[in-house]
Amino acid sequence: MPRFDMTTIGEGQLRYSVPPGQRLEMASQLDVHVACTEANVASLLARLGWRCGWISGMPDTPLGRRVANEFRLSGLDLSAMVWADSGRLATYYVEYAVPPRPTQVYYDRANTVFTNLTADQINWDYLLDTRLVHISGLTVPLSPTIREILLEAVRRAKAAGVPVSFDMNYRRRVWTPEEARATVLPILRDVTVLFCGRGDARQVFGIEGQPEEIVLQLGDLTSAGHIVTSLSGDGLIGWDRRTFHRQPAREVTILDRIGAGDAMVGGVLHGWLQGDFAKGLRYGALTAALALSQYGDQVITTSEELEALLDTSSPDIFR
Amino acid sequence: MPRFDMTTIGEGQLRYSVPPGQRLEMASQLDVHVACTEANVASLLARLGWRCGWISGMPDTPLGRRVANEFRLSGLDLSAMVWADSGRLATYYVEYAVPPRPTQVYYDRANTVFTNLTADQINWDYLLDTRLVHISGLTVPLSPTIREILLEAVRRAKAAGVPVSFDMNYRRRVWTPEEARATVLPILRDVTVLFCGRGDARQVFGIEGQPEEIVLQLGDLTSAGHIVTSLSGDGLIGWDRRTFHRQPAREVTILDRIGAGDAMVGGVLHGWLQGDFAKGLRYGALTAALALSQYGDQVITTSEELEALLDTSSPDIFR
Amino acid sequence: MPRFDMTTIGEGQLRYSVPPGQRLEMASQLDVHVACTEANVASLLARLGWRCGWISGMPDTPLGRRVANEFRLSGLDLSAMVWADSGRLATYYVEYAVPPRPTQVYYDRANTVFTNLTADQINWDYLLDTRLVHISGLTVPLSPTIREILLEAVRRAKAAGVPVSFDMNYRRRVWTPEEARATVLPILRDVTVLFCGRGDARQVFGIEGQPEEIVLQLGDLTSAGHIVTSLSGDGLIGWDRRTFHRQPAREVTILDRIGAGDAMVGGVLHGWLQGDFAKGLRYGALTAALALSQYGDQVITTSEELEALLDTSSPDIFR
Amino acid sequence: MPRFDMTTIGEGQLRYSVPPGQRLEMASQLDVHVACTEANVASLLARLGWRCGWISGMPDTPLGRRVANEFRLSGLDLSAMVWADSGRLATYYVEYAVPPRPTQVYYDRANTVFTNLTADQINWDYLLDTRLVHISGLTVPLSPTIREILLEAVRRAKAAGVPVSFDMNYRRRVWTPEEARATVLPILRDVTVLFCGRGDARQVFGIEGQPEEIVLQLGDLTSAGHIVTSLSGDGLIGWDRRTFHRQPAREVTILDRIGAGDAMVGGVLHGWLQGDFAKGLRYGALTAALALSQYGDQVITTSEELEALLDTSSPDIFR
Amino acid sequence: MPRFDMTTIGEGQLRYSVPPGQRLEMASQLDVHVACTEANVASLLARLGWRCGWISGMPDTPLGRRVANEFRLSGLDLSAMVWADSGRLATYYVEYAVPPRPTQVYYDRANTVFTNLTADQINWDYLLDTRLVHISGLTVPLSPTIREILLEAVRRAKAAGVPVSFDMNYRRRVWTPEEARATVLPILRDVTVLFCGRGDARQVFGIEGQPEEIVLQLGDLTSAGHIVTSLSGDGLIGWDRRTFHRQPAREVTILDRIGAGDAMVGGVLHGWLQGDFAKGLRYGALTAALALSQYGDQVITTSEELEALLDTSSPDIFR
Amino acid sequence: MPRFDMTTIGEGQLRYSVPPGQRLEMASQLDVHVACTEANVASLLARLGWRCGWISGMPDTPLGRRVANEFRLSGLDLSAMVWADSGRLATYYVEYAVPPRPTQVYYDRANTVFTNLTADQINWDYLLDTRLVHISGLTVPLSPTIREILLEAVRRAKAAGVPVSFDMNYRRRVWTPEEARATVLPILRDVTVLFCGRGDARQVFGIEGQPEEIVLQLGDLTSAGHIVTSLSGDGLIGWDRRTFHRQPAREVTILDRIGAGDAMVGGVLHGWLQGDFAKGLRYGALTAALALSQYGDQVITTSEELEALLDTSSPDIFR
Repeated sequence: MPRFDMTTIGEGQLRYSVPPGQRLEMASQLDVHVACTEANVASLLARLGWRCGWISGMPDTPLGRRVANEFRLSGLDLSAMVWADSGRLATYYVEYAVPPRPTQVYYDRANTVFTNLTADQINWDYLLDTRLVHISGLTVPLSPTIREILLEAVRRAKAAGVPVSFDMNYRRRVWTPEEARATVLPILRDVTVLFCGRGDARQVFGIEGQPEEIVLQLGDLTSAGHIVTSLSGDGLIGWDRRTFHRQPAREVTILDRIGAGDAMVGGVLHGWLQGDFAKGLRYGALTAALALSQYGDQVITTSEELEALLDTSSPDIFR
Repeated sequence: MPRFDMTTIGEGQLRYSVPPGQRLEMASQLDVHVACTEANVASLLARLGWRCGWISGMPDTPLGRRVANEFRLSGLDLSAMVWADSGRLATYYVEYAVPPRPTQVYYDRANTVFTNLTADQINWDYLLDTRLVHISGLTVPLSPTIREILLEAVRRAKAAGVPVSFDMNYRRRVWTPEEARATVLPILRDVTVLFCGRGDARQVFGIEGQPEEIVLQLGDLTSAGHIVTSLSGDGLIGWDRRTFHRQPAREVTILDRIGAGDAMVGGVLHGWLQGDFAKGLRYGALTAALALSQYGDQVITTSEELEALLDTSSPDIFR
Repeated sequence: MPRFDMTTIGEGQLRYSVPPGQRLEMASQLDVHVACTEANVASLLARLGWRCGWISGMPDTPLGRRVANEFRLSGLDLSAMVWADSGRLATYYVEYAVPPRPTQVYYDRANTVFTNLTADQINWDYLLDTRLVHISGLTVPLSPTIREILLEAVRRAKAAGVPVSFDMNYRRRVWTPEEARATVLPILRDVTVLFCGRGDARQVFGIEGQPEEIVLQLGDLTSAGHIVTSLSGDGLIGWDRRTFHRQPAREVTILDRIGAGDAMVGGVLHGWLQGDFAKGLRYGALTAALALSQYGDQVITTSEELEALLDTSSPDIFR
Repeated sequence: MPRFDMTTIGEGQLRYSVPPGQRLEMASQLDVHVACTEANVASLLARLGWRCGWISGMPDTPLGRRVANEFRLSGLDLSAMVWADSGRLATYYVEYAVPPRPTQVYYDRANTVFTNLTADQINWDYLLDTRLVHISGLTVPLSPTIREILLEAVRRAKAAGVPVSFDMNYRRRVWTPEEARATVLPILRDVTVLFCGRGDARQVFGIEGQPEEIVLQLGDLTSAGHIVTSLSGDGLIGWDRRTFHRQPAREVTILDRIGAGDAMVGGVLHGWLQGDFAKGLRYGALTAALALSQYGDQVITTSEELEALLDTSSPDIFR
Repeated sequence: MPRFDMTTIGEGQLRYSVPPGQRLEMASQLDVHVACTEANVASLLARLGWRCGWISGMPDTPLGRRVANEFRLSGLDLSAMVWADSGRLATYYVEYAVPPRPTQVYYDRANTVFTNLTADQINWDYLLDTRLVHISGLTVPLSPTIREILLEAVRRAKAAGVPVSFDMNYRRRVWTPEEARATVLPILRDVTVLFCGRGDARQVFGIEGQPEEIVLQLGDLTSAGHIVTSLSGDGLIGWDRRTFHRQPAREVTILDRIGAGDAMVGGVLHGWLQGDFAKGLRYGALTAALALSQYGDQVITTSEELEALLDTSSPDIFR
Repeated sequence: MPRFDMTTIGEGQLRYSVPPGQRLEMASQLDVHVACTEANVASLLARLGWRCGWISGMPDTPLGRRVANEFRLSGLDLSAMVWADSGRLATYYVEYAVPPRPTQVYYDRANTVFTNLTADQINWDYLLDTRLVHISGLTVPLSPTIREILLEAVRRAKAAGVPVSFDMNYRRRVWTPEEARATVLPILRDVTVLFCGRGDARQVFGIEGQPEEIVLQLGDLTSAGHIVTSLSGDGLIGWDRRTFHRQPAREVTILDRIGAGDAMVGGVLHGWLQGDFAKGLRYGALTAALALSQYGDQVITTSEELEALLDTSSPDIFR
């Protein structure tokens, strides 16, 4: 049995937020959260009892340790972390959505320790000693060396027969659809589980249509046996090359949008690791809703809580 | 004239909450509130100008005094409190509802000073020097000695000709419907005002049907001249053995569900003590809504505010 | 070119608030905001890049400086402020609306430095060295000397050929419709831009009907070339004596109602100062919504943000 | 036996503070405490188990109720409070001492409900149904009607044979030494317990010298059988016309200076009410120190805690 | 090489504190910290880079997870934790020392999951796969089963040749000196490192005298090769049966006394694990001072920070 | 008369702090302050009534506006600010000193908008339209372009006959003493007021000795007519080439060390601008103490407060 159920690579970050109804330019206090799209997925899985490992690069300063502390708390293994004596840590700032204002995000993430990582710093044995490697498309364009590391990870996983999960996570402010498509298409050929939201399918691959049509067309681009497309407020669709699984979105009060996509991925993989893709989609809709209902990027929950909330319509009070 | 308008017995407790959107297992600060289903009713009536007395048992520690302080602040008389030199105080923890999560309550209430009270510690003269004694079904099963104290209270009230108000307040995690029914039915024969929600009526007494049918059937179980059934989001129904009083629920933004039932009871009794049961139902719908719109178990209001909000549709701003 | 784009006179105040769901009579902490209906308008315009000046009277104490500090921060010029060595500063207290409770406002504003100002303390040259003088009807009845100052301001502006903007802002707790009408009508004859909400039009001038009818009838009372009537949740209507401009309200999550009217005025004047009244109405609907979505009386925004939010339907996240 | 052990008259006030190291003119939050020099004494005695009553005048608004709530919490009886439908409540602002800055206090206390009270509004029967009436010199000059009420209180107490406690509490910003002396000397002739600090003795009565000389000279001005002079950091001296009682100050970490004098008076009276003046001086030194070590005007303690701390040198940790 | 450098057994607890200058009986918010005298030692060592494991018993509720989360964050291994489906978690409450008040601690720790643990629930292989087992005398009397577990741990460690560290940590409120002595003496015979403060040596063993005399007499009671006696403000003395090591206390600003003893033990063991007992005493004086200068039971530091602060007199600012 | 009394150039920064007794690596909230050694001086002078202008370069983001907002609040003129559409803003993190830990500062200030400024972006007319230009040695080595800008500023000031104030402010982590000396010596020849602390004099110029000897030797390096040397806890010495002015340090409770040197400079210049250098030294000792007693880099005070605190020994309470 491999050491881990899931491993991943991604950039650890600090996130500073002002409370809803306040503006950053007037802030006298900031709330501190930690972030990393891939570690968000992994820490959710760790909370649900899976053995997960995360590789990142961070400065060994109070800021870097702040990020590591909170992910270690979730049970995530950090023993392959690349610690630098100095250097920057990516940070970003959040103003929560209060219509007519959307969630507003301001980045301060240039020239960080992570984006300067090189492939020889990665503990490849650690990364591949797992049932699943998870990669996010958001991380690919962060720097040329990072791109190379992620492509290498997919190559090595393929060679070692380790399944790969890939989340498209396209950000238009970072690269063009053309760049994204050119870089990602070769990856897609070798992945096992593919996550690509409806909007990303349209922007990056020009895929449109009914949910079933979208996953079918995505299926043409990938060897993945499981494809999941988020339909935002319309829920999820999953396809295992046999059956379409439609999962409506859960009723939710949205407090913090950031991290909901990662939570959905984590929920689906919770099912996949159990060998139950269909249940994974139900988990994914629930964990996305839980992420929306909690402040911070990570979902704080337990497997008992997930089961309790999975099917029943919630009572008003559990007591 | 008796010394009090209303007296009651119940367990003083501390309640610790985390803000909406946060999880208890990550909390670095807890908000402190005080609680007691019966004292919630009594403190609301005290704020509305009635003379009320509360009997409980608590340790004479900062924790016990914390509870007493806040109820004394409302004007509630605590001169018959049973203070213990040591012992436990019941506490519970709350995570506020943010869908898909319901309000979640965690109890730490075993073996408390209150549950160890015995009937000889109760100041019966104090309890009966009143226009009304209020009892809650939630408290009955807390311990055998408490059950005995409450049954004794009803017996003594009957003997003294003091009206009794009883709120069913069934909790399935504490006793079975069979136990509850067997214990409560004898009490119901001697009460003057009965509160029993639609769900409790079904679970404990097997009573179902239209609101009017429910109160009619409850009427067969009790000698109470006034019966009130909460229909949750559908409002209230009251029956004085002559007229059915339907009271729709108020429009409300729900911040904290805990204490809404107690607030409704307090509102209805505010009318009953004025001799106007129908108005009491209107008060009850309003005070329940006020409880939902405020953090903490108690309703902070004044009789002037109740009158101002009772009939009018609220303006956006009072200034 | 005049020194300012807009100048105004109004009372600087402190505002103390308790968080939603809490009651003032139990508060252990108060949030401090600053307020002044006219300076709210001016500070929004200053944030949007206009040169604005505000005349008020305040004590030179930490409380008075607290108010001045925050308005100076917005870029508002305070060099004509009348500082008193001692005296009172108006304060008011806010409980935010949580239905069934409306926003509740409690004033402590008697006998303040501002209400004791006399006309000889006003720097008239400063006030008139501007493209626009803004006056609020709310301030007129605060004291006889203040009424005299505002009437004098309108007279001097007319004499100097400086346009005047007037916001009716009727408060029934301060004066009767008859008093308001008698005092305001002479002012209206000399104003250039008139703001009068649908409710004020009815209460003060007895004007009712469809939005177009309201502005037409207001047009009979004033020489103003631009008339704006807020229709609350139904948006705005503007009339430039040629075209009716209907502007629907923006979708909004309301956190704090106070200051929304001032924000609307500021938004409209942002267009007016650009020479685009129609765009001003679109700005006004947006800035009113932004005010509702932020805590505090002032709108914190930039001209770039306004343009970004003006036309598009907002995405969920800007990142 | 009279109904109360101690009654008093004084002005209920709100106090707003910024944390140490912050300045009021930049405050975004204020901490709320309640204040009244006489009620501070009475609430300490109430916490120590004595039956105490306080007469004041306050508006029946959330602000007035805020003050009443916190004093009622201490067990103080408020049933003779004079509630006004409207009117001002005295407030003051505090910046805590951080050398080189002293504690700085800013008042907003003109024209309040209390200063407009008249003698016919006072429940004299309530005030005199007591073992002791307490009066503070600080309150005498607040208004002519208040002066008259306090003089009347002393006259009526004398006539009824009720002992009077008087605390000089001279404030130079409110009246001159000549005014104070002229007004206070007739009172001193009729009091039973006199508190007059070393500084006040010098400023108001021109009395200087060694502590024993001061109390001897004060003794010539009064009929009081017990005279107490605070020597600030040098502790206390008490004289019962037989013995001089010197009490050194307790070691203390000073967090909040306000209320220490009131706490000292309360501690001494705690002994006086027990019939042990010498022990009262020891209590007074301790309660003054406790006041300095706690934020807020009142001392939160219990009689058990006082006894535990009275004689022993404290351990580092009680556990 | 064994799996761990240090393992330990102790009770995980929650600690609730009010800020300095506030009283628990008036608290509206509590700060949450986690506690366990043995895990405090182990988490400090984990932060310093040692591999440490902690065995405890806690309920699998948000409260139990709250404790586990924070210790896991430090890098402490929790894989042998005994999780119960339900049951109590020990909690205690702290008022920080502000003279004349000492630190005041209130316990609510009866009948917890931990005190109900039995020896068969302990993973003995885990406990003994280590370079050192640490035991605290404070935990021994918590319950008969716990006493048995700890005695068993010492027996098994002896049999397996694993060194044992023992911290006397006598609490007079839990057991008498006679009970403590009778129980502890047999343990002392088998320990390798003994911590016994000057006060404990006197109370439990009747040992008094100069520091050197104390450790010499303790040496007669134990086979320990390293003996450490805390002299409170006078620093530490260590004896390795050859040399006396006197270590003066560090200059410190005391914010929170709780955990300082645990921090000293951790610091000494940091040296012991490096094979440098004398340096350990210097670490111990420093880590105790760091604990006093931080809120919470644990010391947050790094080995780099320790080395930087170890010898130099601190500058005012590190920048 | 020139437009300004003082102008300056320096880097606007954000500062994030955790409260005393907490560690950054565990922070869940950060306090936000703004910083700039030169703007700290200028904003103090602005608060004291002088007309001051500050040139910096910042991104026009909420972060940059946050800094500008707070300095504008002080009355500082920002009309020559260089705003960039994007780019980094320098930030740093602070843990306050609690012995044995010193104040710890962590920088994140590489590659900021300010360090990329070039001389052609500076509004030289603005900078020189003043009675005094202030330069800090701390800023010189931030980048080659910044060094060039500051040298150019000194050259232009000399050419225009504008006096220059220079604060050595040596930071050993930024440049070597040799580099500093080589760069600064040419500047010193042209300055009017020189600030160089005892430690900097020794490190950069190898100057040691009694205070008088230090300023004499500094006098040989500069044409400055006024030289000020901070002696830390020993106060200040000033020399106007005629008289030595020794100024002892004020008694102070230190809360936040950062900014004390800037405050001293501001205080001295407050005297210099009044033409009273000797009084300036007394101001400087006081403003340094005020800075130490307040959180944040800037001193919040008024000229009235300075005068009140300048000579008198403080009372305990101002009321």
